Amino acid sequence: MGATAVKRARYIWIPLLALLIAIPAGFYYVHWSQQGEGAGFYSRLWSPEAIFAYWAPDDFYDSVQSVEGRFEGPACVSCHSAITPGIVNDWRASRHARAETPVYCSDCHGDDHRRLHMPTPRVCGECHATQHGQFLDERRFGFPSHALALERALDANHFVDKPKAEVTACLQCHSVAAKCDSCHTRHRFAAAEARRPEACITCHSGPPHPDVESYFASAHGQIYLAEGAEWDWSKPLREGNYRAPTCAYCHMHQGQHQVADKPIWKFGIKQVNPLTSANRVRRKRWLEVCDDCHDEALARDALVGLDRERKRAWEKLYAAEAELRSLREENLFHPAAGSRPPYPNDWLDRLWPRARIGFFEGQASAFYNVSPIERDYFEMWYFDNLSAYKGAAHGDAERVQAAHARLDADLKAIRARADRLREQARREQAAGIVAPDPSSLWLNGEYTEFNREHN
Amino acid sequence: MGATAVKRARYIWIPLLALLIAIPAGFYYVHWSQQGEGAGFYSRLWSPEAIFAYWAPDDFYDSVQSVEGRFEGPACVSCHSAITPGIVNDWRASRHARAETPVYCSDCHGDDHRRLHMPTPRVCGECHATQHGQFLDERRFGFPSHALALERALDANHFVDKPKAEVTACLQCHSVAAKCDSCHTRHRFAAAEARRPEACITCHSGPPHPDVESYFASAHGQIYLAEGAEWDWSKPLREGNYRAPTCAYCHMHQGQHQVADKPIWKFGIKQVNPLTSANRVRRKRWLEVCDDCHDEALARDALVGLDRERKRAWEKLYAAEAELRSLREENLFHPAAGSRPPYPNDWLDRLWPRARIGFFEGQASAFYNVSPIERDYFEMWYFDNLSAYKGAAHGDAERVQAAHARLDADLKAIRARADRLREQARREQAAGIVAPDPSSLWLNGEYTEFNREHN
Amino acid sequence: MGATAVKRARYIWIPLLALLIAIPAGFYYVHWSQQGEGAGFYSRLWSPEAIFAYWAPDDFYDSVQSVEGRFEGPACVSCHSAITPGIVNDWRASRHARAETPVYCSDCHGDDHRRLHMPTPRVCGECHATQHGQFLDERRFGFPSHALALERALDANHFVDKPKAEVTACLQCHSVAAKCDSCHTRHRFAAAEARRPEACITCHSGPPHPDVESYFASAHGQIYLAEGAEWDWSKPLREGNYRAPTCAYCHMHQGQHQVADKPIWKFGIKQVNPLTSANRVRRKRWLEVCDDCHDEALARDALVGLDRERKRAWEKLYAAEAELRSLREENLFHPAAGSRPPYPNDWLDRLWPRARIGFFEGQASAFYNVSPIERDYFEMWYFDNLSAYKGAAHGDAERVQAAHARLDADLKAIRARADRLREQARREQAAGIVAPDPSSLWLNGEYTEFNREHN
Repeated sequence: MGATAVKRARYIWIPLLALLIAIPAGFYYVHWSQQGEGAGFYSRLWSPEAIFAYWAPDDFYDSVQSVEGRFEGPACVSCHSAITPGIVNDWRASRHARAETPVYCSDCHGDDHRRLHMPTPRVCGECHATQHGQFLDERRFGFPSHALALERALDANHFVDKPKAEVTACLQCHSVAAKCDSCHTRHRFAAAEARRPEACITCHSGPPHPDVESYFASAHGQIYLAEGAEWDWSKPLREGNYRAPTCAYCHMHQGQHQVADKPIWKFGIKQVNPLTSANRVRRKRWLEVCDDCHDEALARDALVGLDRERKRAWEKLYAAEAELRSLREENLFHPAAGSRPPYPNDWLDRLWPRARIGFFEGQASAFYNVSPIERDYFEMWYFDNLSAYKGAAHGDAERVQAAHARLDADLKAIRARADRLREQARREQAAGIVAPDPSSLWLNGEYTEFNREHN
Repeated sequence: MGATAVKRARYIWIPLLALLIAIPAGFYYVHWSQQGEGAGFYSRLWSPEAIFAYWAPDDFYDSVQSVEGRFEGPACVSCHSAITPGIVNDWRASRHARAETPVYCSDCHGDDHRRLHMPTPRVCGECHATQHGQFLDERRFGFPSHALALERALDANHFVDKPKAEVTACLQCHSVAAKCDSCHTRHRFAAAEARRPEACITCHSGPPHPDVESYFASAHGQIYLAEGAEWDWSKPLREGNYRAPTCAYCHMHQGQHQVADKPIWKFGIKQVNPLTSANRVRRKRWLEVCDDCHDEALARDALVGLDRERKRAWEKLYAAEAELRSLREENLFHPAAGSRPPYPNDWLDRLWPRARIGFFEGQASAFYNVSPIERDYFEMWYFDNLSAYKGAAHGDAERVQAAHARLDADLKAIRARADRLREQARREQAAGIVAPDPSSLWLNGEYTEFNREHN
Repeated sequence: MGATAVKRARYIWIPLLALLIAIPAGFYYVHWSQQGEGAGFYSRLWSPEAIFAYWAPDDFYDSVQSVEGRFEGPACVSCHSAITPGIVNDWRASRHARAETPVYCSDCHGDDHRRLHMPTPRVCGECHATQHGQFLDERRFGFPSHALALERALDANHFVDKPKAEVTACLQCHSVAAKCDSCHTRHRFAAAEARRPEACITCHSGPPHPDVESYFASAHGQIYLAEGAEWDWSKPLREGNYRAPTCAYCHMHQGQHQVADKPIWKFGIKQVNPLTSANRVRRKRWLEVCDDCHDEALARDALVGLDRERKRAWEKLYAAEAELRSLREENLFHPAAGSRPPYPNDWLDRLWPRARIGFFEGQASAFYNVSPIERDYFEMWYFDNLSAYKGAAHGDAERVQAAHARLDADLKAIRARADRLREQARREQAAGIVAPDPSSLWLNGEYTEFNREHN
C-alpha cells in the first residue's frame, strides 16, 4: 500500500458519515412523503377524489353524519329495507343472512352510524382467514398481483403525473386490493358468482389485457356461453364439477385465493424463460388443471405452442427495440429526451433525461411526452403483443393470427418511420437546416404542464 | 332625427313587403318540398328503397296484393300458422293472444288483405295511451330522442347527400320513431323483453355510442350477465325488484316511456354545464335511481367523477379545436373549404364555403369532403370522446382509461399534422411553389358526385 | 399450306413428346412433394408442430405409449373417471352413453391403448352417414368450405412462407375439416349445442369474418341473447321451433350439413352477380328460410338492400384498385415487386415478380412483403369490406354504417398516399435524386428470411 493510498484511506469516514446521515434521512423522507392529504409515496402531491372514499376506505372514508346513534343488525335491516332495498335483498339472499347466527350489517360496518366504515379485506379476513391469508400471500410475488394493485399504483409517479380525472379510472380496478367486493359483489358475496367469468370482466378486459374477450372467443368460452346458465355454480372448482373451465377454474383452482404464484409469463410484458426450474414446477401445476379433461399430451403440446408464439412475438419486439436503440444512438428522436418536459415527479428523468426503451429501462412508465416512434413501440408492445399473448394463452386462435398481423404491420411502420427520420436528418444536414423547435407540439397542454396546475 | 333619416324611413315598406312575400313563400316551399316521392324536407330529391316500406310504413307500405278478401283474427291465425308459423307462435305466447278478448292480427293490421297496414306507434297508442303519450312527449326535448329520430334524419341534408345504400343502414335504427317493435319484438311485444339490455343492443352499440358495450363491461353488466337469465323479468322496473340495473331500469325507471327528459350530458357531443338549475333537478332524479341500492354519497361521488372526466375531455377537445381554428385563419386546410365540392343540398355551404369546426358550427353534419386534419378531429370528437363519455357514465373504467389515452394520441397527431402543414407552407412559400390542385383526391367518386348521379 | 408450314409440321413431335414426359413427371412431382414429414403439397418443407397431432390426426397422431393393453368400453370409462373425469362426465351425458347399446370410447378410439386414434369425420361417418355425406359434398363447391379448409391451407404456399408459430393459429380453425368436434364439442357431441351460435364463435369471429359479432348485434341476435337460455334446443332446426334464427338455423336449415351450396356472395371477397340463374335459385332458398317468420316481401327487400350495399362497396374497392393499378403502371410502388424478396416457395413470383392487385391476381396470398399502399388496400378489402358485408348480411346496421365510413376513409388515405408517392417521384426526378435502397426495411427479419431459417 503506497503513501497516497494510506492518505486516502483516512478519508473513508466521509462516505461512511454520508451514509449514516443519508439512510435514516431516506427513511424519514419516505415516511414524511406518506403523511400528505393523499395516500402512498406521493401523498403530499395530490388530494383524493371523492370516490376514493370507497376505493381506499381506510384512508379516506368518512361516515355519513346525517344519522346519529348506535344500531344493531336487525335495526339496520329494518330501516334500509325502505331506504336501499336492493342491497337488503342481496344480503337476505346471502349466506350471511341465512347463517344460524346471521352476519349483520353492523358486524362489518360497525354500529355507530356516524363512524361506519367500509369493510376492507382485513375485515372480511376476520372470518375468512384462509382466503385472506392466501390473498395476502400474493405480495411475496410482487406486482402484478391483486394484493399489491392499489399500493403500487399509488406509489407510481405516473399516478401523480397524470390528471386525476383519468387515473381515477385506472384506480377503479386497482382498488381490488382494498375491496373483496370487486369479485364478490355487494351484499350477496356469493362464492358462486365469483366462480363465473363475469366476475373478472370489469377489470380483465380491454386493449392491454383482453382476458375475458379471448376466453369468450375460445372453445372453453363457447361452451360456457352456451351452457353456463344451467350449471350448478355452488359446486367447488374441482375436477369433474364443470364442463368447461372459467377464469377461476384455472387461475384459482380449488378455490385458491393466491393467484400470483402460478403465472409463467405473467402479463406477457417481458420475455420469460418458460423452462426455468421454477417455471417447470408451474407448468406441472397448469397441466394438473388441464388434465381434468384433456389428454396430458394435448395440454403439453398447447403449452409448447404458447412458448413458440411468445418466442416469435419477442423476435418482432426485439427487432423494433433494436431500431429504437439505434435511433437513440444517432440522436434522432424528435423531440429528444432532453428537449421534452420531464415528468415533474421523476427526479432521475430531470437530472438525466434519457429515452427509455423496453421493459427493463422502464418504458412502461414513460409513455407520455415521448416522440411518435417511441409511442408506436409502446402500442406495439402493450396492445398488440399482449393481445397475441392472451389469445395464445386462452386458446383464441383468431386473436393470435390478427395480433401477429398487427405486430408485423407495427414493425414495418416503425422501420418506415425510422427510415424517414434518418432520411430527413440526412437532408437537413446536407442543406445545413436546423430543425425547428417542436414547441407547439410539446410544451402546451401536456400532462406534465396540466398536472402542475391541476392535481 | 335628421332629414336623411326621415327620408330613409319612407323606404321601410320595402323590407316589410319582402317579408310579407317571403314568409308564406317559405311555408309554401317547405310544404312543396315534402310532396315528393320520398319523405321529409328532401322528399323530391330521393326515392324510397324497398325496405322503407317497413321503416316508414305510413309513407311507403303497400299491402301484398296476391291475397284478396276480408279476414277476421281467427282466420288470419289459421292460415298464417302454416305460412309464417314463427310469428304466430310469438303471438300465441303474447298477452294479446291470452287476453279475455284477444287482440288479433286484424286489430292492428286491418282486415282487408289488400289494404293491410304496418302498425305505427299511433296504432299501438290506441290501447297503450300512457306509453304512447310519454313517447310523444319526448319531442318537446328535441333531438336526440326516439320520437324525433326518423323525422330529423329525413330532414337532414346529409341524408340525401350520402348514397342511399349507406344511409339505409342509419335509418334502420332511426326508424324507432315509427316502430314500437324496435324494442318490443314482433309479435310477442312483451314488456319483459324490453326490460332487458338486449332490447337496446341493435342500435345502442358501435363506435359513436358504445352504450351496451360499456354497460356489459361494468359491474352492473357483470351481475346481469352472470345472473340475468334467472331473474323474473315480469316484475316492473322498481326498487328492490332487480339485483342490478339494466338500460331500462335507469333510463326508463318505473316503465317511463319518456327517455329524453332526464339526460344531463345528452350524447356527450357538446360541453354541458352539469350544474344548471335544470340539471340539478336531473341529478336528483338520477340519484333517486342509484339509491335504490347505493349509499347516496357514493352515487353523488360517481356523478362528480363523470363531471370531472367530461371537463378533462373537453380540455383536450378544445385544444384540438383551437389548433383547427388557427389553421383555418392561416388558410392551411388542404383542400380548403372553397376548393372542395359543396354538398349538393347545402345552399349555405355553396354560397359561403367555410370549414366548420366543432358542434356549434355544425361539423357533425359536414364530415365528408373535408381535409384530413378536420376528419381527424371529427374522429377524436365522435368516437374517442364519446367512448370516454359512455365509459364514464356507465362505469366501464377500462374504457375511460383507453379512450383518454386515444384522446391524448389524437391531440398529439392533430398537432403533429398541423406542424407539418405549417412547415410545408413555409417551405413552399420560401421556394415560391404553388401547391398542386388536389383534384385526383377530391373530385372523383366522392359522395357529392356520386349522389348527383345515383340517388 | 405453304412449304415452310409443312416443314414446321414435321416438328410437332417435339412439344408432344415434351408433354408426354411433363405430365407424368408433374404427377410424380406432386406425389413426391406430399411424402415429406409434414402434410400437403409442401410436406417436405415443414415439420409438424406437436399440436398437429390433434388437428390432422390421420397424418400425425401417435397414441400414448405409457399404457399397454386392449380395453373395452367399460374398462376405459372406469379408469378415465378418475384420470380425466371431465370428459367422462360429458360422455355420460351424451346420447352415445344412453343408447341401448352404448357407443363406448373404444368404438371411436380403438381398443389397443398403444394404437389409439383420434376420430376424424370418417370415423363419425360410420354411424352418421347422412351428415358425413353432406359434409363431404361441400368439396364440389370448392373453397371456402369446411370440408376443404385444412387441405387448401396446407397446399397454400403462404402456409410454409409464414412462421409455423403463427400459421398454427390459422390451422386451429382450418382443422374443422378433420374434426367433427370443432362444432360438436367432446365428448357430449350434442346436436343441441351445435344449433346454438356459440358453436361457431371460436372460428367465425374477428376482423376478416365478424359473423358472430354481427349476428349478436342484430335483432335476431338480440332475441337469442335475451331468451335463448330458455329455449328447447333439442328441437330440430325447422320452422316454428325457434323464436329467432341462429347461425345454424339459416345456414344449416333442417340440419343440412352441406353449408357451401347456398351462399350467394361467398365471403364477400370478390364481386358477384347476385342475379345469375344459379344465384336466383339460392335467393329462393334463402327466402324460404326467412319466410318461416317474415313476410316474404320484407325478406326480398332485405336481400335487395344487401345487393345495393355490395355494389356500393365494390365501387369504392374498384376505385382503390384503379389507383393501385395506375401506380403500378407508373412504377411507383416502393419497394417495387422486383426489389422485395420473393416468397421462397412461389416460383412464379421469383421468375416474374409482379405486384398483385385484387382478388383475381391473387393479392390475398401476397399480403406480406408488399409496399405500404398495397397493404392499405389489403386491409380495406379484407377487413373493412368484409365487415360491411357481414353487417349487411346479418342485419347489423351499425356495422354497415361504421364499415362504410371506414371504406371512405381508406379510399381517401390510399389516394392521399398515391398523391404523395407521385409528388415525391416528381420532386426526386426534378432534383435528379435516386431513392435510396430501402434495404433496412425489407431485407431483415421478414417472413421470407425468417422461414428459410426456422420452418
